[in-house]
Parts: sequence; C-alpha cells; structure tokens
Amino acid sequence: VKAARFHARGDIRIDDVVEPAIRPGAVKIKVAWCGICGTDLHEYTNGPIFCPSPDTPHPLTGETPPVVLGHEFAGTVVELGEGVSRIALGARVAVEPRITCGSCAACRSGRHNTCADAATIGLAGAGGGLAEYIVVDEALVFDIGDLPLETGALIEPLAVAVHAVRQSGALAGEFAVVFGAGPIGLLVSAVLKAQHGVRVVLVEPNEHRRAQGEKLGADALIDPLIQDVETIVRELTDGVGADRAFECAGVDASLAGCLAAVRTGGTVVNVALRSTPARVDLLPLSLKEISLVGTICYANDYPAVIELLQSGRLNVDSIITKRIELHDLVVQGFQTLLGDDGSQAKILVGTDALSSTGY
Amino acid sequence: VKAARFHARGDIRIDDVVEPAIRPGAVKIKVAWCGICGTDLHEYTNGPIFCPSPDTPHPLTGETPPVVLGHEFAGTVVELGEGVSRIALGARVAVEPRITCGSCAACRSGRHNTCADAATIGLAGAGGGLAEYIVVDEALVFDIGDLPLETGALIEPLAVAVHAVRQSGALAGEFAVVFGAGPIGLLVSAVLKAQHGVRVVLVEPNEHRRAQGEKLGADALIDPLIQDVETIVRELTDGVGADRAFECAGVDASLAGCLAAVRTGGTVVNVALRSTPARVDLLPLSLKEISLVGTICYANDYPAVIELLQSGRLNVDSIITKRIELHDLVVQGFQTLLGDDGSQAKILVGTDALSSTGY
Repeated sequence: VKAARFHARGDIRIDDVVEPAIRPGAVKIKVAWCGICGTDLHEYTNGPIFCPSPDTPHPLTGETPPVVLGHEFAGTVVELGEGVSRIALGARVAVEPRITCGSCAACRSGRHNTCADAATIGLAGAGGGLAEYIVVDEALVFDIGDLPLETGALIEPLAVAVHAVRQSGALAGEFAVVFGAGPIGLLVSAVLKAQHGVRVVLVEPNEHRRAQGEKLGADALIDPLIQDVETIVRELTDGVGADRAFECAGVDASLAGCLAAVRTGGTVVNVALRSTPARVDLLPLSLKEISLVGTICYANDYPAVIELLQSGRLNVDSIITKRIELHDLVVQGFQTLLGDDGSQAKILVGTDALSSTGY
Repeated sequence: VKAARFHARGDIRIDDVVEPAIRPGAVKIKVAWCGICGTDLHEYTNGPIFCPSPDTPHPLTGETPPVVLGHEFAGTVVELGEGVSRIALGARVAVEPRITCGSCAACRSGRHNTCADAATIGLAGAGGGLAEYIVVDEALVFDIGDLPLETGALIEPLAVAVHAVRQSGALAGEFAVVFGAGPIGLLVSAVLKAQHGVRVVLVEPNEHRRAQGEKLGADALIDPLIQDVETIVRELTDGVGADRAFECAGVDASLAGCLAAVRTGGTVVNVALRSTPARVDLLPLSLKEISLVGTICYANDYPAVIELLQSGRLNVDSIITKRIELHDLVVQGFQTLLGDDGSQAKILVGTDALSSTGY
C-alpha cells in the first residue's frame, strides 16, 4: 500500500509499504483525506524537527526515518482489534494524533498536551494520515457520525483553535482581535464566532487571506501595513480595547499588536509556536495587567469540535482551497504551498478518495 | 516647613516650602517616616520619568518641577478638612499615593491601578512623603490602628507585593519561586508565606540579599550563578515544577528562569517594570501552557496589608536596614543606595521622627 514518508530534509517520497497490522485495542482506518500542515512543510524545508533523526530513534515510537507523514486526517474504520468496544466497524472517524507518556504530572492532571514526552503521529512515527491505511489506539479515535470525510480532516486543526479559544477564557458577547489569517488564525476566528458569538477583527497583511477571513464571517478586517490596529480597535470598542487577542502569526510585530489592542485585564493567547526568541516590550503587559497565555495542541477538545460541526453552527469547509491526490503530494502540495501568494489555505490530500468521489 | 523636592536629574534639594493647606474632603498628615523607593532613585539618576518635565505640566496635578518626592509614608492626622468622616484627628495613617481619572473603563471596573492617566503622589506632584506635612484626599488615607509608624511606611511596597500575589492566583500549600531579593522580591516572598503558607524558593545572586531572604523565612535560597534553579526546583517538587514564579529582578535571565521553573499550567507574574524590550524564548510558555501575568501597583489592597500586619502573621520590619533624617536624604539615602553592595534593603527617612524617637 502507498504512504508518503519523510526520508530526510527535502526528501519526501510516496513509498510502497507493508499494510499496517491490526493489534488489540486499536482500529484500522482507511484514510480518506489528510490535510497538509505548516509543520509538515517545516519538516520538508528544515527537518528533521519533530521527525526523528537518523541516529536517534524517537523515545516513544522507537522509529527512525523514513516515517509516514500526515496528522490531519479522517477515514473509515475497516478492522477492529481485540477488545475495541467504543468504535464500530464502518464508522467515519477522526484521530487525535498525539501519543503521550500517560504517567507524568501533566498527563495525570488531564493536560496531556503538555506532556514533556508527547509526540505526534504522522511526525514522530506510528504511521500517518498521508497513507492508505493507519492503525490507531481506540482512545485516540473519534466517531464523526455523518460529517463529510473532508470536513473530518479539518477536525485536528479545529481542535487547535478550540483549545486556544478555551485558553483565552473568551465569553459570550466579547470582542477579540486575531493576528494572522493562515489556517489557524482563520479557524480561531470562526470558532470564536460559532462558539461564543464573539465579535472578531482579523489582522492580516495578505489580501487573499483577508478574503478568506471575510468568507468565514470576520466582523472587520485590518491590513496592518496601512491601518493602525490599536486605533481601529479602540473605535470599535468605545475606547476600551479588545477583551482577547490571538497571536497566530509568529512575528514580534503581531505580539506587540496583541498587547496594544487588548483592554485592561485582557488576555493575549500566544498561538503560534516560535522557534526563535521574541523581542517584546512588556510594559503594556504590566500597565494593563494583561495575561499572556500559552496554548499547545489540544486535550479533550475533539468532542467540542465534532459537536460544533454536527450542530451546523460551525462550517469552515471554505478554507479547503485545493484537493490533490497522494502521488502529487510533493509538487502539487508542498511546492504549491511553498510558492504560495496567500491564495491557498488548506490543501487536502486524498488517498483513494479522489477516484471514489470523482475529484 | 521642609520638603525634599526633585528639581531636575541629579538635583534633589531639601527646600523650605509653604505648609500645605487643608481642603474639603482631605486630611493633613504630619509625616513620620517615608521609605526611599527604586523609582525615586531612577528619577535622581535618569529623571524626569514619572516626575513631570519642566515644559509639560502633569495632566492630573498640573505641576512642573520642583515637585515633592516620597510615596511610601505614614504619619499622624493633624487636621481634618470639611466633610471628612472616616478618618479621625490623631489617627496613625498610611496613604495609597495614586491619583486616577476615576471615569475610564479601568477605573469604573475597580482596576484604577491600570488607569492610563494614573499618577503617583510624590512623583507627579500633589505633595509627597519626604516632607513634614502632606494633605491627601480622605479616600486615599487608611487608618493603621496602633501599628508602629515605621511599619506603616512599609505598607505601600507591601501593597505592591500583596497585589502581585493576588495576580498570581496563589493558593494555600503551593510552591513558588521568587527571582530577585530586592525590597519587592523580599516582600513578595514574605506575603506568600504569611498569606497562603506557600513554600518559597528565593533566587538571588547577591549574598547580602539572600541573607535578608533567610531572615524573612524563605524555605530555600538559590544563587543562580552557581546553582541550576530548574533542577533544584524539580527536586523540591517531585519533578513537577513550581506553581507560581515571580519575576522581581527585571532581567531577561530571570524571566527565562521563571518560565523554566514553573509547572504545566503554572503562572509567572512579571513584577519588575521593564523600560526596555525583553528578549524571551516563548516556547516554554507554549509547551507548558504558562500564563505570564502583569501587575502594577495596587487596587483595593491596603486593607489586606493592614490586616496581615495587625494580626501579627506578617512582620517585615527586618527589611529596614537604615534610618536617616530628611536633611541627609541625598548623601545618606540616595548615594548610599546607589553605591550599595546589597547590604541595604529599605532606608526610611524620618522627618521630625528622629528626634522624637531617639534615632
């Protein structure tokens, strides 16, 4: 069977691999769709980062490259391991692709997303969604009912957004500013509106990305290169400032913008992961007693995402800007995203789905 | 009557001034003791910062230099203005030396410490505690009962500490790390223990300051130049990390140390005010979902401080390392602190108190 595997930086191949075998407590999923994440791109251009190095097997998976890629996926259950009871054969499912130690203080406190040993399926080994089949422990598998499988492939990044919003403490009727309209910024904006009815201003210099935000219902769009965010936010909030701000761009200017935009006692969520130190003036944090809050992945957030999608309150299918087949992954997927002018948001990769659904 | 006044950077004089006149709703206080704050030192070496500039009258006080200094003071009420009812003649009192607009969203929400127009009595004008007399609005005056007036002069910096601890969300039985054992770090440590029974590790490179921390009951003392804070904190917390950390040093290394020392979901309070941007690796904030929280001055914290002191649970008199007379302020006060090797914590300045109490 086919699988996209990371061999080394710049070397991702569609390989023929042995079909993964079922095991007790796990389910075998025939993958339908898998999204390409910015993290996958970073592995391609700068990896191995979360992928293991050739000399050091990953501590949790024991694997070295090549490893299967893909962690944003949905598919259909085709085989059940011994003892599986919560998931039915034939069910459409999404997967929370995180393996954790299960025994540290973070895991025991229900915050397994902060487990120091946590690893991501589809980066660290243990299979991946850019493949025809994957076998995953039942505990990580979530039934999505009759949601389309394309939508199912958006549940992982939506869980990142739902978790970030939860970390923000956002309440109904509040006002939020989101910096950066990449996929995560777009999903954070959509979740804020769908879950809490929050008024959202989206700040993004790229016009294509702003257009994506408009489609998803952002209440106002700001180009920070020609408009002053703090002034506009003050005008929109009777001079008070935003209740919450989300830093989804990963640049110093956006972090400063968040601190400038929020009110006294407001919360800034640092969503983007930064690989280099930030340079930031903390005086606004002091003078306005702001809370700058970290967020990473998700923990117990999949049910909320699935409920939001099933209820019809949340629909983010418009962020799917392209669908490609697995064998076109590198050229049509990675290289398209690397050369992108902002027109692409989420590219979905179909394994066998393309032929069966007519794309 | 005498008052210490800021004329310009490096130019602080003990002047003869007109005795301030009583007004409706205010009380006249004969000052007994006033502490010297780091902020006063900064005005002396780098000012005007919070003091007004010669060309621009302060927006709330309307004053330009010279302005009277001193905002950490206690004294005795010698005259009551018309309509004063809460404060009695002869009462020993401390003063919350903050003037705010009273009408902005921050003030209306009870967070007047974050009022954008807030000013400090003793820096911005409106008199100061480094003087024989001051007239202050009744609302800012707090009866300290029979607490010693020296202790009363510590209430303002203690309110900073109590507010920072409140911002941290510290709970009984927790574990905290305090970086920096200047006066504020020392008081934060003492308040954590007195108010919540928190175990406190104090991190400070200066041996004299560590000795001060030991006197105040810190459970462990770390010299970060020769000991690894993160390792020691992990050992003391069964590998979990600290619940709360307080950055009271104002340097990048301490901020990084706070982020390294706290557990998953822990809180770091940024207590020190930073006049220059920080350079900080935010990856630990993301991976451990830390909250970095700002704090500034105090709002509704004086009653808690006075109660802690009156109950006997809190006694920080040992941080008073020197008592001087007003006319010795510059040489014995400011210049002693500027040349200090860490032996000095809080220097109190007596106005007429020296002769009457025998110092």
